Amino acid sequence: KNNYRIAILPGDGIGPEIINQALKIINAIKNKFKINITTTEHIIGGKAINLEGSPLSKNTIKCCEQSDAILFGSVGGPQWDHLSRIERPEYGALLTLRKHFNLFANLRPIYLPNNLIHLSPIKPKIIPNGLNIACVRELTGGIYFGQPHGQSGTGLKEYAFDTAIYHRFEIERIAHFAFKLAQKRHKHVTSIDKANVLRTSMLWRKTVSKLATHYYPNIKLQHLYVDNAAMQLIKNPSAFDVILCPNLFGDILSDECAMICGSIGILPSASLNENNFGLYEPAGGSAPDIAGKNLANPIAQILSAALLFRYSLQLNHIATIIEKSVYEALTLGYRTLDISTKSNQPNKIIGTNEMGDIITSLI
Amino acid sequence: KNNYRIAILPGDGIGPEIINQALKIINAIKNKFKINITTTEHIIGGKAINLEGSPLSKNTIKCCEQSDAILFGSVGGPQWDHLSRIERPEYGALLTLRKHFNLFANLRPIYLPNNLIHLSPIKPKIIPNGLNIACVRELTGGIYFGQPHGQSGTGLKEYAFDTAIYHRFEIERIAHFAFKLAQKRHKHVTSIDKANVLRTSMLWRKTVSKLATHYYPNIKLQHLYVDNAAMQLIKNPSAFDVILCPNLFGDILSDECAMICGSIGILPSASLNENNFGLYEPAGGSAPDIAGKNLANPIAQILSAALLFRYSLQLNHIATIIEKSVYEALTLGYRTLDISTKSNQPNKIIGTNEMGDIITSLI
Ligand SMILES: CC(C)[C@H](C(=O)O)[C@@H](O)C(=O)O
Ligand SMILES: CC(C)[C@H](C(=O)O)[C@@H](O)C(=O)O
Repeated sequence: KNNYRIAILPGDGIGPEIINQALKIINAIKNKFKINITTTEHIIGGKAINLEGSPLSKNTIKCCEQSDAILFGSVGGPQWDHLSRIERPEYGALLTLRKHFNLFANLRPIYLPNNLIHLSPIKPKIIPNGLNIACVRELTGGIYFGQPHGQSGTGLKEYAFDTAIYHRFEIERIAHFAFKLAQKRHKHVTSIDKANVLRTSMLWRKTVSKLATHYYPNIKLQHLYVDNAAMQLIKNPSAFDVILCPNLFGDILSDECAMICGSIGILPSASLNENNFGLYEPAGGSAPDIAGKNLANPIAQILSAALLFRYSLQLNHIATIIEKSVYEALTLGYRTLDISTKSNQPNKIIGTNEMGDIITSLI
Repeated sequence: KNNYRIAILPGDGIGPEIINQALKIINAIKNKFKINITTTEHIIGGKAINLEGSPLSKNTIKCCEQSDAILFGSVGGPQWDHLSRIERPEYGALLTLRKHFNLFANLRPIYLPNNLIHLSPIKPKIIPNGLNIACVRELTGGIYFGQPHGQSGTGLKEYAFDTAIYHRFEIERIAHFAFKLAQKRHKHVTSIDKANVLRTSMLWRKTVSKLATHYYPNIKLQHLYVDNAAMQLIKNPSAFDVILCPNLFGDILSDECAMICGSIGILPSASLNENNFGLYEPAGGSAPDIAGKNLANPIAQILSAALLFRYSLQLNHIATIIEKSVYEALTLGYRTLDISTKSNQPNKIIGTNEMGDIITSLI
């Protein structure tokens, strides 16, 4: 295949300006490696609410369906916080896309290179070699989408309820994903649950254990209760390789991992389905406070584009080239404000655009 | 009232040896302040499984019913990990007691005094004044006890499900507890939910907001999504005063807070019902690896006894005396191994028994 389509969804806040930097990279790759890539841009999120009355139009979904992957900026902002849950950009755009495209596998590589460990709120002696964890989160099941859910009753007896539900096939496919990833890494999977309390967790643990015994005897599998995991991640994050989580626990623990890294502006994510179709977005949010000021760090978005090349376009060498360029820029001392270093280290503070240009020039 | 009964449930692992230190304190208080306290000891947890076939006997429950409060050590250990969820010490003893006595309010004071900040895995510059957070967790509702839950289906379609459910009255009573606590502290409550996804969280947020407006206009109320909270707690734990959580989120975040403190061996907890009856236990577990070696830190258990005097016996001045004695022992440099300091600070490493004796002598 030498003809790829990428749907570009910049969204709100810093989304457009950081996605522009990723587009520079994609163009440089197109030219240098003569790859035929067509990009089409669509509005989404709050902007789409304002212009089209809904955060995700049928037409945008159709264009995404005709693409090999989605590069997503970020959605949401205070302007739309008064809307109801399903009308809001986060739910109406992001959760709808996840479900529509069956993007069950969310991957967040938590990587902090050696020369950035000062960014972590954790003491450097705990992470002398930086951080390198792969968070794998189940993204289309569990309590996020379980039926029934709702609200009923009146007065003090008014009540609301949600259903957490996991099928064995849902657990197996995400576990396969995590184990296969671990094969290429340090062969260690930590599976997260609350099997001392929850039924879904008991099935989760049983299923993951069986799969490990049957198919991945060379992988070291460990089970941790989610409360204990929240502790161990802070105590000794280097003890983790691949973390495998149900949807809700993954939401919480992957953000905890991100903050242990200290630099959410450099963390990408991939959300994949069974056919390598994927949505790629920065781990951070739309950051409306710094939007449009040329301050946002484009690295998370650029590394998301790298993951897109790796997983959806199956062009691993291109992904590696992008990643190398990013870490080279950092080694040369270039920093956006959010990851600026102390004065005793090389430090060239630059804006969003300049960071995009420098990384592009290193491709 | 000048006649109190306390049920003592030492349990498994380090439970018995740390509870013995708390008993020394209680005896010293009895003698010095001429308070009439009767303590009765009962087996519970794994030990009760071995001796009586169940982790919590009817007789033990009856004795607890006849008491003003329960001082609980800890239960569980690898010996009983093969048992089914409800047969195990954690569920069969702890969760059953919580539900039986309607202990809906779980309080975990996360306090790290100035002279112990080196214990935290977080950089000292982030917590220059130590830590002082009150975690309030709803303990008898949510997904822990929601009906229906179960397992069904076969093959790849085998599935398991849990129900999260919250009634307005359950949210109101725990919110009242948190707001009242905040009145006596820094008048700031951070309420945790996932209202962008869960129905229970939407009701949680609405109910907490209304209560604040109606009854606590002088309290600053802030809402945080649980994933964001997991980040902010690491980034800037000093920004928190009282944290108000639903059951499951409280389980995760209170453990995260404990590890940010770095010293789970000094953190107590109280689980209360509407009549000030309570169960008091250390935040840490049964630590079977160090059990019986005179190594365990008894401070969490002793501070749990202090909370018992404060909340169930309504003897606040006694609670304060116990707490002062604990922090005095620390200031004098006494340390169990788990909280031993670097060589440039005063450091007298002692065992479980000796720590109990020293704190008792300071009463
Ligand atoms: C915006 C929200 C619905 C979403 C989630 O909870 O999945 C976000 O926190 C994330 O992790 O992508
Ligand atoms: C042992 C377990 C059931 C319990 C819980 O999840 O509540 C424990 O983690 C706690 O926090 O007291």
